[in-house]
Amino acid sequence: MSRSSRRKSDRKGVAINAASGPSGTSSAELIAHHVRRACTPRVLEAHVTPPHLFRLDFAERLFKRNYRDPVLVTAAPYGHTALSGSGPATTAGLARECEAYEALGYDAAAQALNDLVARGAEPLFVHAALGSGGQGDGATAGPDVAVRVTKGLCEACVDAGCALFADHAAAQNLSAVGLPLSVFALGVCELRRIVDGSEAEAGDIILGLTSSGLHGEGLDAVRALVRAVSLDLSAAFAGPEAKTVAEALPSEAAASAEPKATWAQVLLAPTRVYASDITTVLRHYRVKHVIVGMTPITGGGLPGSLPRAFGNKLDAEIDRQRWPVPPIFSFLAQHAGLADAQLWNSFNMGIGLAMVVRPAFADSIARQLRRRQGQDVHVIGRLVPGTGRVRLA
Amino acid sequence: MSRSSRRKSDRKGVAINAASGPSGTSSAELIAHHVRRACTPRVLEAHVTPPHLFRLDFAERLFKRNYRDPVLVTAAPYGHTALSGSGPATTAGLARECEAYEALGYDAAAQALNDLVARGAEPLFVHAALGSGGQGDGATAGPDVAVRVTKGLCEACVDAGCALFADHAAAQNLSAVGLPLSVFALGVCELRRIVDGSEAEAGDIILGLTSSGLHGEGLDAVRALVRAVSLDLSAAFAGPEAKTVAEALPSEAAASAEPKATWAQVLLAPTRVYASDITTVLRHYRVKHVIVGMTPITGGGLPGSLPRAFGNKLDAEIDRQRWPVPPIFSFLAQHAGLADAQLWNSFNMGIGLAMVVRPAFADSIARQLRRRQGQDVHVIGRLVPGTGRVRLA
Repeated sequence: MSRSSRRKSDRKGVAINAASGPSGTSSAELIAHHVRRACTPRVLEAHVTPPHLFRLDFAERLFKRNYRDPVLVTAAPYGHTALSGSGPATTAGLARECEAYEALGYDAAAQALNDLVARGAEPLFVHAALGSGGQGDGATAGPDVAVRVTKGLCEACVDAGCALFADHAAAQNLSAVGLPLSVFALGVCELRRIVDGSEAEAGDIILGLTSSGLHGEGLDAVRALVRAVSLDLSAAFAGPEAKTVAEALPSEAAASAEPKATWAQVLLAPTRVYASDITTVLRHYRVKHVIVGMTPITGGGLPGSLPRAFGNKLDAEIDRQRWPVPPIFSFLAQHAGLADAQLWNSFNMGIGLAMVVRPAFADSIARQLRRRQGQDVHVIGRLVPGTGRVRLA
Repeated sequence: MSRSSRRKSDRKGVAINAASGPSGTSSAELIAHHVRRACTPRVLEAHVTPPHLFRLDFAERLFKRNYRDPVLVTAAPYGHTALSGSGPATTAGLARECEAYEALGYDAAAQALNDLVARGAEPLFVHAALGSGGQGDGATAGPDVAVRVTKGLCEACVDAGCALFADHAAAQNLSAVGLPLSVFALGVCELRRIVDGSEAEAGDIILGLTSSGLHGEGLDAVRALVRAVSLDLSAAFAGPEAKTVAEALPSEAAASAEPKATWAQVLLAPTRVYASDITTVLRHYRVKHVIVGMTPITGGGLPGSLPRAFGNKLDAEIDRQRWPVPPIFSFLAQHAGLADAQLWNSFNMGIGLAMVVRPAFADSIARQLRRRQGQDVHVIGRLVPGTGRVRLA
């Protein structure tokens, strides 16, 4: 077969590796199914073995999107989730306790993708490596864990419109304790369109995009709370607290929460993927730089995250009355005995991603974002001269 | 500062993240030092936090290397090395036992980079995430482990001429048992220059590039041997066996092995990075496709690895008399009681990377490769009609 014809016919191929596992098993087939669902036309070839090939650019008319000065953006906020600890590893720990493997996969990809889009990049692909579990404990969760994590990764990639590469080594050997998952996301951005906060000015408006839940942060406190009140995470919602939490859920999480949703599903509602929301708005303003700073609200809450979106000669004045803090946060604070400052420094408090925008365009941008399903937007503050800090009012 | 001037001044900046660790500690500084050593002009900006930015293409004259149809190639053969098990994880286990953290870092990057170059790609960067260790065992190796692993990663990237991004989360908290390291490597290749074995034909010559040692494979057998003969890995070479092994070392490992080299250093001699060797040859033949297949010899030895370099309508005839098998392999076989077939199916037997080349160019390619320091090349066989198998003669 000639090179060109093979390339063409394989363009919709699937990049899947389950080389170390027995090929043809239903586990490998299911993993392949999920990878195939996230396949984009830019994935070059079907591969049984890595490395994976991905076309950055197209000479063809259909996909012509040539970059003058392409900048690759790479993020690996999860690193891996092999062991419990702080940050994302805690998500893994809690996810394992609750067997919420789809949520874990979705969350891992979502966090990496949000890091990319916050720099103005278009996500290209997520490359995940799900490794063998540890020896020592003897507890193996079985190959379906790999399938379920891959399903979650796939959903996030589909939501972001990017491809998924998934390498599974020894998928049969996943330990319930060790669940080693590495997630890298790659995006591309035109050099002059990079969003890095360097052009932010006093007077710029801060828009807050609503979160889908805890976004994987503050779970240490949640775990402590779960232990303190002996909450059964696998239990269905019941009683007044349950109602409070159910009402507190953002619309998309509430929509996916069946009547019998568990506490685990509520607490582990995966991080919202803002990729298509942001990409839509960025494409609308092809020439003007109207979005000058962006950041996901992660560790450290608004005070810890927001400074990434502007320079150190500005302060962010946040008006906490401008958006409804979902009751789940005050509920958690009340039962975990957290002071107000701790609360705001641990949780996203309902804002999953913040944008610094030019004042003249704030309304227009907010309007465009609100058209996106399940996405609400609030003007949460503005920039003033300062020293790179966040002032909560 | 204007965007363009800032970009320019920061072009030689350093991408380093030790955000979770205390900034300004000597550990963070040392990590930054190693990342800076591997910095290339394509690294766009100094970043304290990820994501990292990397220029794929340059409009400027100095670095003009525009791709008509750029294809990104991504590899993550290590996935992570958090826990012991088969494959690379065993390297991690053995490296931890021997505290050979530089070797571990070098080997992790080298394996990923070799996967890229075997597809004809030019390595762009390695993105490594070195995470916090596990709780449970209480043994923490300290921040110097992160520094030493980063040093190894850096050396491999420098040898390959690519950049390094290193995210260290909770670098202070590395466990001696859990050493979670994820390594992704990204490369770029012109679409029509991809090397994938599809153009291989009967009569093509197989060149073997010498390995630097075990290349991280077969270490299960090595570990069993170490236990069986109660070999102290930290002991210096002594006695006749030591002499045998010392003589068996490839030249570059022998050169780096000081008079007091330990068994660990010999067994864990990191995988050779073939990137600059291959890139030099590929650049020499800009138009002609003279190298049609390539693969690192990894798990499964020559019989397990070589079929990746040609199609399933060909067989590889390997003449084992064509190169000297380093005595270390027969030494290991003898003491581990491995049969000949097991030996050839576990170890690389002295060949670290194989190339399928057009017969008319075999001599010229071999000559070019031999000019590279420490690199020897042998004609080890040829392709004949078949079914995708390797025949050892």
